Amino acid sequence: MRIALAQLNPTIGALDDNAKKIKKCRDRAMEGGAELVVFSELALSGYPPRDLLGYNKFLDREREIIVEELMPLTVGPGPAILIGAAHRRGSRLYNGAFLLDNGLIKSIHLKTLLPYFDVFDESRYFTRCTDRQIEMIGDLPVAVTVCEDIWNDMEYFTDPLYDIDPLEGLFAGGARLLINLSASPYHLGKHALREDMLPFLSRKYNTAVIYLNQVGGNDDLVFDGSSLVYNDRGELFYRAAGFKEELFYIDTEDLYRPVKNIVPPDEDDTGTIMKVLRLGLKDYAAKTGFEKAVLGLSGGVDSAVTAALAVEALGSRNVLGLMMPSPYSSGHSVEDAVALAKNLGIEYRIIEIDKPFNSFLDLLNEGTEPYVDVAEENLQARIRGNIVMHIANREKFLPLVAGNKSELAVGYCTLYGDMAGGLAVIADLSKTKVYELAGYFNSYHGREVIPRNTITKAPSAELRPDQKDQDSLPPYEILDPILEMYMEKNLTAAEIAEKGYEQETVEEVIAMVTRSEFKRYQAAPGLRVTPRAFGPGWRMPIARG
Amino acid sequence: MRIALAQLNPTIGALDDNAKKIKKCRDRAMEGGAELVVFSELALSGYPPRDLLGYNKFLDREREIIVEELMPLTVGPGPAILIGAAHRRGSRLYNGAFLLDNGLIKSIHLKTLLPYFDVFDESRYFTRCTDRQIEMIGDLPVAVTVCEDIWNDMEYFTDPLYDIDPLEGLFAGGARLLINLSASPYHLGKHALREDMLPFLSRKYNTAVIYLNQVGGNDDLVFDGSSLVYNDRGELFYRAAGFKEELFYIDTEDLYRPVKNIVPPDEDDTGTIMKVLRLGLKDYAAKTGFEKAVLGLSGGVDSAVTAALAVEALGSRNVLGLMMPSPYSSGHSVEDAVALAKNLGIEYRIIEIDKPFNSFLDLLNEGTEPYVDVAEENLQARIRGNIVMHIANREKFLPLVAGNKSELAVGYCTLYGDMAGGLAVIADLSKTKVYELAGYFNSYHGREVIPRNTITKAPSAELRPDQKDQDSLPPYEILDPILEMYMEKNLTAAEIAEKGYEQETVEEVIAMVTRSEFKRYQAAPGLRVTPRAFGPGWRMPIARG
Repeated sequence: MRIALAQLNPTIGALDDNAKKIKKCRDRAMEGGAELVVFSELALSGYPPRDLLGYNKFLDREREIIVEELMPLTVGPGPAILIGAAHRRGSRLYNGAFLLDNGLIKSIHLKTLLPYFDVFDESRYFTRCTDRQIEMIGDLPVAVTVCEDIWNDMEYFTDPLYDIDPLEGLFAGGARLLINLSASPYHLGKHALREDMLPFLSRKYNTAVIYLNQVGGNDDLVFDGSSLVYNDRGELFYRAAGFKEELFYIDTEDLYRPVKNIVPPDEDDTGTIMKVLRLGLKDYAAKTGFEKAVLGLSGGVDSAVTAALAVEALGSRNVLGLMMPSPYSSGHSVEDAVALAKNLGIEYRIIEIDKPFNSFLDLLNEGTEPYVDVAEENLQARIRGNIVMHIANREKFLPLVAGNKSELAVGYCTLYGDMAGGLAVIADLSKTKVYELAGYFNSYHGREVIPRNTITKAPSAELRPDQKDQDSLPPYEILDPILEMYMEKNLTAAEIAEKGYEQETVEEVIAMVTRSEFKRYQAAPGLRVTPRAFGPGWRMPIARG
Repeated sequence: MRIALAQLNPTIGALDDNAKKIKKCRDRAMEGGAELVVFSELALSGYPPRDLLGYNKFLDREREIIVEELMPLTVGPGPAILIGAAHRRGSRLYNGAFLLDNGLIKSIHLKTLLPYFDVFDESRYFTRCTDRQIEMIGDLPVAVTVCEDIWNDMEYFTDPLYDIDPLEGLFAGGARLLINLSASPYHLGKHALREDMLPFLSRKYNTAVIYLNQVGGNDDLVFDGSSLVYNDRGELFYRAAGFKEELFYIDTEDLYRPVKNIVPPDEDDTGTIMKVLRLGLKDYAAKTGFEKAVLGLSGGVDSAVTAALAVEALGSRNVLGLMMPSPYSSGHSVEDAVALAKNLGIEYRIIEIDKPFNSFLDLLNEGTEPYVDVAEENLQARIRGNIVMHIANREKFLPLVAGNKSELAVGYCTLYGDMAGGLAVIADLSKTKVYELAGYFNSYHGREVIPRNTITKAPSAELRPDQKDQDSLPPYEILDPILEMYMEKNLTAAEIAEKGYEQETVEEVIAMVTRSEFKRYQAAPGLRVTPRAFGPGWRMPIARG
């Protein structure tokens, strides 16, 4: 049997646009001779539709598309359709996989395991369903599952999140093919995890596995596609494109014989991070209606890497860099930023902030002498934020935030200043990772894109004379691992200190994280890269002891 | 049996401070002759502790306090202790009520129903437990329950959220007293709901009911206290203070005879809203370490009401008002704002924004002629935001946001401008409700606090010549009900139009709400008043079709 797999990039909530794309794919699948065409989890609404699921009319329209537009396509010679969509039964909502065949809904397979950790809120919307049955597709007994339902193997995971594993019953019943409709957002390490867990299932149950993932950026989340197909020996038969759409075909007979060329598992590297951020930025701009982006270029590595990513995503003609030196900017700042702009081939403007800065000081200092306090540091950052926003508002640019995760974590950033903008591109990259990405750009392009001086000089906010990050913060090679252990491993100060870090430093870092929660509450959405990003997956009280 | 009920105001995460308060209360309860003292849901961590629950060391410390500090107090003559705390069993976490007696944990009653709707995320943290048993306290068979567990009566609710009702088994087993440890945040209508549902349970099961609620503001949520006690006939025996701490006593024998003075149910009114916002603001300031607040005073009703609330919460000596007129400010704006400041007895400063505004225009307009476009409107608001933040940063004020829900909903507000600040006090009040509250202040104080002119003049942002809100928005008496139906009833445009609103207007309003999601993503926490507030209870995608 020939199956077409559609790894698509939906726009959240755009039911009709997504349906159009789905129907086109189905037409191509028919031409390609497919007997079945498969779409990913919640393919019509896109994932995650969030509180749009609370609107009955939205669900009505989704169902209408299935019944009136997709179902009729399965009358006659075309392929059957397997597609993820919400399913209402009484007042309960389920996350389902609809099999449409012969002009009918042949069956609906409802999701059992509803993720509610990290960025996921499925139990907010859906009811779990434990009724499952094997689906005969052609002559094949198939286990049709939705995303999380395959992620609770009691042997594979030492500490499974749920008490039941829906696969057990399905494979006890004799399934020989596992089809999983997914919408699995990327984070570092996920490729390796998938390419370890899926062949485990394949070998455990002697089953072929088709894992179909969504692709595309949706606010903070980037879905990487990278759909996978394994034969019944756990050998990788096919890996679909990462970070772009693809329609591909599988002849199921091929899945029950050895794979000729064994491909090693896909490991994540700095190039993967570049692809995540490029797609996340590209899609955020496209899906919110922007063609162009603007950002401040300080001469530092964060804005340099953000600008380079913007060029990757939108093209050099669509990126504008603003150099906004203040009285405290070092001589090389503008130079380095101009060098970057020239390397990238982007437009830039130099706008000195002295005049507005001085007019604020006139107003606020009852004279003109700077206090050189935190208020004035923030003021400079906010004047820059104003200028970026002004140009963005007037000329219809998407304003980008260039802050990294290390500074966002400890609050080494100014609300409404350098934090101002529509999308925080590298907000989930530690400073260490930002440097890695800077190096990657230069070797990837085989030339100096990020100026050498930007990479080698000591990081500085340049908001007071001779300021350096390391005056206020531990060195990044100490700060970054502490933050990672605190955020990703949920270790406390004592536990981190046991790993060889100074207790006092660790406590101060964690105190800074706690104190700056109010800033992150108001931060722009940041593209997620790590297993634990700020944003919807980090829910901390602000006012706390 | 004499039971002491402790309606306390914890600080989230401040385990040791909260424990101190709890122990003091327990000492007073002993002096008061209580045999049992009861504390609310998750009383040690405060509710909601959110992702703090992901830290094992945090849970260890909580358990340590129970075992090492509270348990020993129940050896000897003092009261037994019933207290809400998290409970770990293997890798699962439960939301429990611990009964401590004779120096031991006599029993733990685990929560069954885990709310995950609206602002609640309990299934993110806790596992549901369906084992329940009746607790004998003295001679009384008691149903000990945690919060949501009593909110799923299949007769009372036409569409119960969960498939089981934990009370059924407990009362089939003969319970005669229902004790519910709650942490139930306030929203409009909740008093009426509680005072209708609780006596229903009492009559249905012929049981006395003790409903103990947390009190205090925690970020966006305000817990109102207002704990309730009913006799076994559903008659209200006692209603504890609203919006403040109280330790009160019940002699259980009193709960099995008629109540002498029947009190009518507590209905919410504008005075209730005042109390919610006063406590929310007071606690946010106290729990984040601020004594003083600063805000811009435009002469309009939003900032006037916010200032009046700040005075209620912090005292007139602790509130600073900033008049920041621009070239487009009307003559009466500063006058009205000064009148307000004088009525409130607060300090004020007049800071004209012309000079920074002009210096920005010099920089950005290649000349000095204003364009009078949206960018320049926003710029004025952002200059004001800068000034508020500057003074807040330098002089340690909590900066307050004065925006209302109507404008936040449709995006009639400037990111980093009038949206700048640490707490958005009236962000969940429609413009209509803001006017009601303005009127309330004047009648409550028996004099003109909010100047008459502020209440009677047409609302305007004054960011361009002769601007009025109604140039850009439908009249508030049309806008506000549309927003309420869209947000609270989840109706779509067609459904709202059916109620007698112009379809085109409704569609434009909903489009404005959708388009402005990016602003709300970065909004300051806003105190919740209605059943559906922006913030953690409103989870909408930004990039969507």
